[in-house]
Amino acid sequence: MTAPLAEASADTSGPPRDHLGTSNPIRVALLGLGQVGAAVARLAGHTPGRRIEVTGALVRRPAGRNGWPFPLVADPRALLDGRPDVVIEVLGGVEPARSIVLAALERGIPVVTANKSLLARCADELFAAAASSGAPLRYEAAVIPGVPFLCAFAHRPLASRITRLSAILNGTSNFIVSRLSRGSSFEDALGLARERGYAEPDATRDLDGTDAAEKLVILVRQFARVGVRPDRLTRTGIDCLDTQDLHCAAAFGGAIRPVACADWTSAFSAWVGPAFVPEAHPLSRVDGVSNAICLDSPTASAPLVFAGPGAGPEVTAATILDDVLSTGQTKGFVRSTHVITTPPTQHAPARWFVRFRDIGLRFDTRDVSELLSAHDVWIDRWSVEGQPGGDRSRRALTLPCDQRGLDAGLGAVRAATGCNVFAIRALEAPCG
Amino acid sequence: MTAPLAEASADTSGPPRDHLGTSNPIRVALLGLGQVGAAVARLAGHTPGRRIEVTGALVRRPAGRNGWPFPLVADPRALLDGRPDVVIEVLGGVEPARSIVLAALERGIPVVTANKSLLARCADELFAAAASSGAPLRYEAAVIPGVPFLCAFAHRPLASRITRLSAILNGTSNFIVSRLSRGSSFEDALGLARERGYAEPDATRDLDGTDAAEKLVILVRQFARVGVRPDRLTRTGIDCLDTQDLHCAAAFGGAIRPVACADWTSAFSAWVGPAFVPEAHPLSRVDGVSNAICLDSPTASAPLVFAGPGAGPEVTAATILDDVLSTGQTKGFVRSTHVITTPPTQHAPARWFVRFRDIGLRFDTRDVSELLSAHDVWIDRWSVEGQPGGDRSRRALTLPCDQRGLDAGLGAVRAATGCNVFAIRALEAPCG
Repeated sequence: MTAPLAEASADTSGPPRDHLGTSNPIRVALLGLGQVGAAVARLAGHTPGRRIEVTGALVRRPAGRNGWPFPLVADPRALLDGRPDVVIEVLGGVEPARSIVLAALERGIPVVTANKSLLARCADELFAAAASSGAPLRYEAAVIPGVPFLCAFAHRPLASRITRLSAILNGTSNFIVSRLSRGSSFEDALGLARERGYAEPDATRDLDGTDAAEKLVILVRQFARVGVRPDRLTRTGIDCLDTQDLHCAAAFGGAIRPVACADWTSAFSAWVGPAFVPEAHPLSRVDGVSNAICLDSPTASAPLVFAGPGAGPEVTAATILDDVLSTGQTKGFVRSTHVITTPPTQHAPARWFVRFRDIGLRFDTRDVSELLSAHDVWIDRWSVEGQPGGDRSRRALTLPCDQRGLDAGLGAVRAATGCNVFAIRALEAPCG
Repeated sequence: MTAPLAEASADTSGPPRDHLGTSNPIRVALLGLGQVGAAVARLAGHTPGRRIEVTGALVRRPAGRNGWPFPLVADPRALLDGRPDVVIEVLGGVEPARSIVLAALERGIPVVTANKSLLARCADELFAAAASSGAPLRYEAAVIPGVPFLCAFAHRPLASRITRLSAILNGTSNFIVSRLSRGSSFEDALGLARERGYAEPDATRDLDGTDAAEKLVILVRQFARVGVRPDRLTRTGIDCLDTQDLHCAAAFGGAIRPVACADWTSAFSAWVGPAFVPEAHPLSRVDGVSNAICLDSPTASAPLVFAGPGAGPEVTAATILDDVLSTGQTKGFVRSTHVITTPPTQHAPARWFVRFRDIGLRFDTRDVSELLSAHDVWIDRWSVEGQPGGDRSRRALTLPCDQRGLDAGLGAVRAATGCNVFAIRALEAPCG
């Protein structure tokens, strides 16, 4: 049996032999046959140009699952022993994905994965194994699978001189927040997301920011060369938001969006959570299940913005198969060298969107402002929605302040007025 | 003398040997030492990772131009005979760029170019030469140089299943139109663009759409696999716009933007010119010198959007050098096969933004609407800015109509009322 991929990739000095001109199929072993795996299997026989042939799939219980034109196996060794040209990993989670991917890379078999949990937690050993054997490890489908952009930066060190990024990385939570802004309740929005297939039955990892944090870790590794564990990132879920927050954000000239941000201009900081996004920021208009990323560099006059449809089995499968098709055409993605393992440090001063709920009747916004000002926190705008005697929730946008001051100020307000306080960051509009 | 690039690109089966690990510089010959060429020469010694060394530059008159650490020559053969690893072409225009690039490719020397005129006019022979010798030809800097995206699609056939694109490809004209929308006159806006270095002393090619048309030809070749000459595209300049057009577009819920569009969903059509862009379209908010492209595919729920800073010598130089650095890492860009040479055909029905200037006093909007309706052109909205006795310009947005009907209808209005008529297309907001 020939190894068409190895053959094609060795031949870079002669005329380019692209996938259109090669008739041998690329033989892939599929780890996982869930929604994405099944979409990969369906689409594989129909790629433009070179054909991709699934030679077998790993599933937990092969018995009784018929209808696929390839064998289903429970033992990964059987798949790897078949010497596939590429392994596609769509199992999700860390184990057994980690062990099988490592085994494939150690044997020199290229791996394409969409598994953000695996990449966010085991990048060091995976990239070390890839570097050691020379087998490429590709993961365009792990972050905003509908928009090819990681591959564009992989071999472009000058374009990669980014020092800050902000992104909407989770379509489920962006869909829910978008519905809230149209007056829907959180429960109704989540129900609709499930109905439309945008949310899994258990959407915890989408709603609490875990999914976005894993993707942010992958981005931070590629762009900042910083290795950080997802659980070390500051993370806020979106389930604390209500419709009135969204209305108020619009009145403040912006929107609330579930974002993931990292900044390594000087110190390193990274966080995930809902944020007030001013209208002039490109993320303010990214609506529904769409995803987007803004990359800022100190030399550019405007941020780079990449946006498009969020995940979905078909989109993710197409991106995985593009990774497979490009495996013979380009070298692997990430250099495993020069990654600094550093904990997230202090966040730069920022504006905050703050909600004060159930302020005691004796207090008004002047009292709150005064309590905050003692900690050097100054209110830029107060909402006007509070009605005397009714809901005494009030919302405010602060001027840029230090997080330590804000925490102390909000603590003082909480102690004095008995109110329930909730604060989310505000992004700055990019200059240019 | 060793040839480090050829060496590196032959070595794809072993461990990835990236530019960080290679100490030999990449030796480049520079064709042209204008603004972009000079920026390339300045930046070349400072690339992260592998160093790029300029071995010489082609200029028209070498005498008296000192201060560069490499020889300036007037004879391109002297440069090619030095067997550079890569040739960078930033001469602009067709000749002598075409002959020298062909000679380099025929000798198997990789070429990186930012020359859209050359690529738009000579793509067939350039890609044929590249395919025949196997030397890559790269041109990320030719279209939206600040945003790496062409390279992302080069080896991704599934992501490339695009059937429509709309883009803002010329920063100069977008800057001027943005200024008009803020009340500036055309002359003032052009003056400011020159003052800030966004416009050349002779900005004709920016203002009349030639520059955008050349870029559109390159995009259409890559995404639609259609070869078309820039002068075969329907093209309108922006100098016909006035401030009132921009105000009125805002009142109609959108903006006017200088766009380049192509659609090959069924028949092929491509055009360049100012267009009414509804607020929900991603291009409506691309402001100033920024550039952007939206790619639509029939299967995606939302368009892919890539946006960022427009051209500038530094940005273009960085993109060129990234192309140089990636030359050993990835195969060349475009397959020269399967390009269909076809003339632009009929445009699909569209809405139009129409200006009627100097309508005779005996006529009002009802008369105009009636004249148009005889040709199956129906007005969706009339502007309200016309004042009796004052400027009798009126503007309107039509419902979708056939261009032939529109031409006939506007001809009838012109004949009957003596007014001056001007019409630009309206984009549809993408679904999703």
